[in-house]
Amino acid sequence: MTQTYTRKTYNRLKRAPGRASYDEAIVHQILDANLICHVGYEIDGQPFVTPTSFWREENRVYWHGAAAGRMLKHQKAGVKVCFTVSQLDGLVMARSAFHHSLNYQSVMAFGTAYPVVDRTEKNRQLELFMDRLAPGRWDEVRPPNARELRLTTVMELVLDDVVAKVRNGPPVDNDEDHLLDCWAGIIPFHTATGAPMDDPQLRAGILPAANLRQGIVSLVRKFGRVMPW
Amino acid sequence: MTQTYTRKTYNRLKRAPGRASYDEAIVHQILDANLICHVGYEIDGQPFVTPTSFWREENRVYWHGAAAGRMLKHQKAGVKVCFTVSQLDGLVMARSAFHHSLNYQSVMAFGTAYPVVDRTEKNRQLELFMDRLAPGRWDEVRPPNARELRLTTVMELVLDDVVAKVRNGPPVDNDEDHLLDCWAGIIPFHTATGAPMDDPQLRAGILPAANLRQGIVSLVRKFGRVMPW
Repeated sequence: MTQTYTRKTYNRLKRAPGRASYDEAIVHQILDANLICHVGYEIDGQPFVTPTSFWREENRVYWHGAAAGRMLKHQKAGVKVCFTVSQLDGLVMARSAFHHSLNYQSVMAFGTAYPVVDRTEKNRQLELFMDRLAPGRWDEVRPPNARELRLTTVMELVLDDVVAKVRNGPPVDNDEDHLLDCWAGIIPFHTATGAPMDDPQLRAGILPAANLRQGIVSLVRKFGRVMPW
Repeated sequence: MTQTYTRKTYNRLKRAPGRASYDEAIVHQILDANLICHVGYEIDGQPFVTPTSFWREENRVYWHGAAAGRMLKHQKAGVKVCFTVSQLDGLVMARSAFHHSLNYQSVMAFGTAYPVVDRTEKNRQLELFMDRLAPGRWDEVRPPNARELRLTTVMELVLDDVVAKVRNGPPVDNDEDHLLDCWAGIIPFHTATGAPMDDPQLRAGILPAANLRQGIVSLVRKFGRVMPW
């Protein structure tokens, strides 16, 4: 049986509820196929939206940053956030201006994020993050020393009040607009990666590990593709 | 002389101020090369981050949506927002876990967004939005009727308390870490578009206008490229 999230306070879609999904597998799939989230929080009545990288373990998402940074400094005591991940799949070009739209996949999670305090767990989470991008790379690089770990804050949010939102497929036009001599369809968008570029200071003879290439390629391929209907 | 934005309350970078830019041309260039923004706002103490499409005219950004939607319903009276646009250019793979990073370009704008009330101006803004994607398409599609215009809210934010943040170039490793036998460099990321996909209901013989293809391609090419160092 597929697990589903419960409808809570904030994750209920009032408009276009047909685009909403509470299916855990769909929520996780969208999260795992994207590298960047936008974390919203508020300081003294002013909203902030910070783009940052993130990762997931089971039913929790994580992001990290400098302990001294504005976002994480204010989130240390646990802060209400909206954690949003979005992916543009295409422009929906309809026959009327009004019915133009976007194909996209998004996740919004609401809750209170807390810093990971335990140093061993923090280190393990950073390894998971690296592992997501390039399995095995953690063993090749120099691990964080005590000072670096102290300078890094890792935030954790449990996925609970969460919803996925997806639009796909062709434009939906009014019947009478189909008579117009206007092209209609989708312009697909996706994320692509280029070939790895060596650090100009790289010593001769060192190649990117196969798992690095493989990790990135599979990350992009997982979702960064044209979705036929 | 290049125009620059003034350092205000929220747009001062406390950390890594060297990545900040207040250059109007850079702020505009990042905005014009991206289609999606994340708008942060707050309702009764709960932050929300909504991904949506946007466009720019001179020193103002605009986004639109259903007048009945959660975000725009609450923004009608003018609401404090953080308007964020971000673009991932690459993964920065260093020789230490700590120095891994992202190459990116982002803009954060703070202020109060207001709805465009005047119907003629609202219609003109929607035309500008379409024009951004596909110059000339506004004349091919059916324009919004009175009901559709009423159902659409267009929000405006003046760019004032705004900052761009950019990281590019190779990893920056500690001197001693250069001795490690570990590959270091950049995995470039960019946005790509596929060939236009016809609506399955498209009548025979109708092709996408040349300007549609051209508009999209130039939009992506403008910034969605590998940046050499």
